[in-house]
Amino acid sequence: MAFSKKIRPTNYEFLHGISDGNTLILSRAITIIESSLPDDRVLATSLLDQVLPLTGKSIRIGVTGIPGVGKSTFIEVLGNQLTQLGKKVAVLSVDPTSSLSRGSILGDKTRMSELAHNPDAYIRPSPARDSLGGVAPKTREAILLCEAAGFDIIIVETVGVGQSETIVRDMTDFFLLLMIPGAGDDLQGMKRGIMEMADAIVINKADGNNLQAAKISQNAYSSALHLFPPKASGWIVPVQTCSAIDGTGVAEAWNTIEQYNGKMTANGFLFENRNQQRIKWLHELIKEKLTSDFFSNSLKQDQIKSLTEQVAQEKISVRKALELAFN
Amino acid sequence: MAFSKKIRPTNYEFLHGISDGNTLILSRAITIIESSLPDDRVLATSLLDQVLPLTGKSIRIGVTGIPGVGKSTFIEVLGNQLTQLGKKVAVLSVDPTSSLSRGSILGDKTRMSELAHNPDAYIRPSPARDSLGGVAPKTREAILLCEAAGFDIIIVETVGVGQSETIVRDMTDFFLLLMIPGAGDDLQGMKRGIMEMADAIVINKADGNNLQAAKISQNAYSSALHLFPPKASGWIVPVQTCSAIDGTGVAEAWNTIEQYNGKMTANGFLFENRNQQRIKWLHELIKEKLTSDFFSNSLKQDQIKSLTEQVAQEKISVRKALELAFN
Repeated sequence: MAFSKKIRPTNYEFLHGISDGNTLILSRAITIIESSLPDDRVLATSLLDQVLPLTGKSIRIGVTGIPGVGKSTFIEVLGNQLTQLGKKVAVLSVDPTSSLSRGSILGDKTRMSELAHNPDAYIRPSPARDSLGGVAPKTREAILLCEAAGFDIIIVETVGVGQSETIVRDMTDFFLLLMIPGAGDDLQGMKRGIMEMADAIVINKADGNNLQAAKISQNAYSSALHLFPPKASGWIVPVQTCSAIDGTGVAEAWNTIEQYNGKMTANGFLFENRNQQRIKWLHELIKEKLTSDFFSNSLKQDQIKSLTEQVAQEKISVRKALELAFN
Repeated sequence: MAFSKKIRPTNYEFLHGISDGNTLILSRAITIIESSLPDDRVLATSLLDQVLPLTGKSIRIGVTGIPGVGKSTFIEVLGNQLTQLGKKVAVLSVDPTSSLSRGSILGDKTRMSELAHNPDAYIRPSPARDSLGGVAPKTREAILLCEAAGFDIIIVETVGVGQSETIVRDMTDFFLLLMIPGAGDDLQGMKRGIMEMADAIVINKADGNNLQAAKISQNAYSSALHLFPPKASGWIVPVQTCSAIDGTGVAEAWNTIEQYNGKMTANGFLFENRNQQRIKWLHELIKEKLTSDFFSNSLKQDQIKSLTEQVAQEKISVRKALELAFN
């Protein structure tokens, strides 16, 4: 089927295009999902409900790490290795930090040039921050559409230093934390919050002069992990090394993910975790909707306006204004 | 006045203790503000409304930077230099990332041991993440109490890699981004979202073998800043270097902050920015309250429970459930 860029496919064409793995149609469907136009929203709801039976069959992998750790290179190498194993790989990203640049300075496709030209891979940049309801719900829905389009592995990358770690952890099955060799004590302490979320720590750049430092970091992080309480999943978090530049260790990282997937499918954790993720997602959307309804409620508007002015002019404390807003 | 640890001070004693600059009473007042007990909440609202006329006279400085950049050392040196100038300095921190460790691994006082023993300084760690309404409102209110207690400079530090940058920017007048020398292109791109928020970029660790690299970074960041649109405040963001270890450049960083404060007070930006911050804060609290009210509404509970189950079991899409929740 060929589609005009101008004429919008019908619901039927969208559904069939997606389930046929047509990435052109897939991209257009993701754009519909990101849109806040009323017509697009109706179509999006319909599409998402219809593709639901086709979703859930992929392994959803979150990849995070501080800037400079080599996330893009790692994902590119992992993605290409996976397509060589016959897998179809989709790469999505979440970037809630940059309001002006709307995503990373270099587009994701530029950063992963080889993977971008791989026929079994699909790369979609992060939606703009001001898309209705934030970037997370759009990326979650994009995961579902990619699954319906037959992608076996969905990699969701955190882009930007920001609130994206928790967001990505909450939409993936496996959360991989990339690190660099030779991280000091300060770094270890500060990263504790993110280390707690990780299902694997992979120390990248374990090559050349860094090999020794990578081994030392590996031991240090392994010891540090013992300080955490056991995971609800029962999974023991491994610390591995790799070099995205020469490809060493990337297959081993994938091996860990496959092991995790097997165990967590068998013990029911994966299933339960996804259920919990969907519930949390619904509750977050409800929160967004409540807020927008409240502030557009004509009966409340005068009162909120008055309280807002009093707060701006420091006539009352914010805490007091909050009390009054609900009385 | 001496107070028992057991017997709670009265409203009057709190007010006078705070306005006398009694840090023991200040600490207890901040604890009251962080509490969710009904009695404490009544007292907190009353205290905050009463101290309002005493607030707003400090310079509120946010300090951020990736892990390992030397934030604590920088703040310690800056804090000690400021007290030598006769200023009273309070250091607060915001750490929304770590749910299990409840703040950084090492307490803030351990990290800034010299400043912690300085009689003109006051250090208060981040409230626990699960404190009612999140950490940000508590830290905002702590700023007000510290101001009422006579602190001239309030430094709010981001702790942890996470969503804290925007939160801290939204409660301070001046947002200082600490960097390290020799950051690569990747890092620059990734930090763009945070660079956009900065009122000054200070490259720390500009000492010893890093001096040359720090100069190169200084030029690189200066050039990069030209890519951003001009600031609403009209402020031109400087890029400076410093060494928190040997103290070089810290006075110059303070000089920049003072210049900013003078200009922004004169042109009215500081005043207007604080007004906008309070409005945003109120709106965020309203959002929290709407959500908790909605989920505790007995009429809605059965419907939400049913929709939540259908979503968990993948019978309907999250988007569809959201529609139904409001019909």
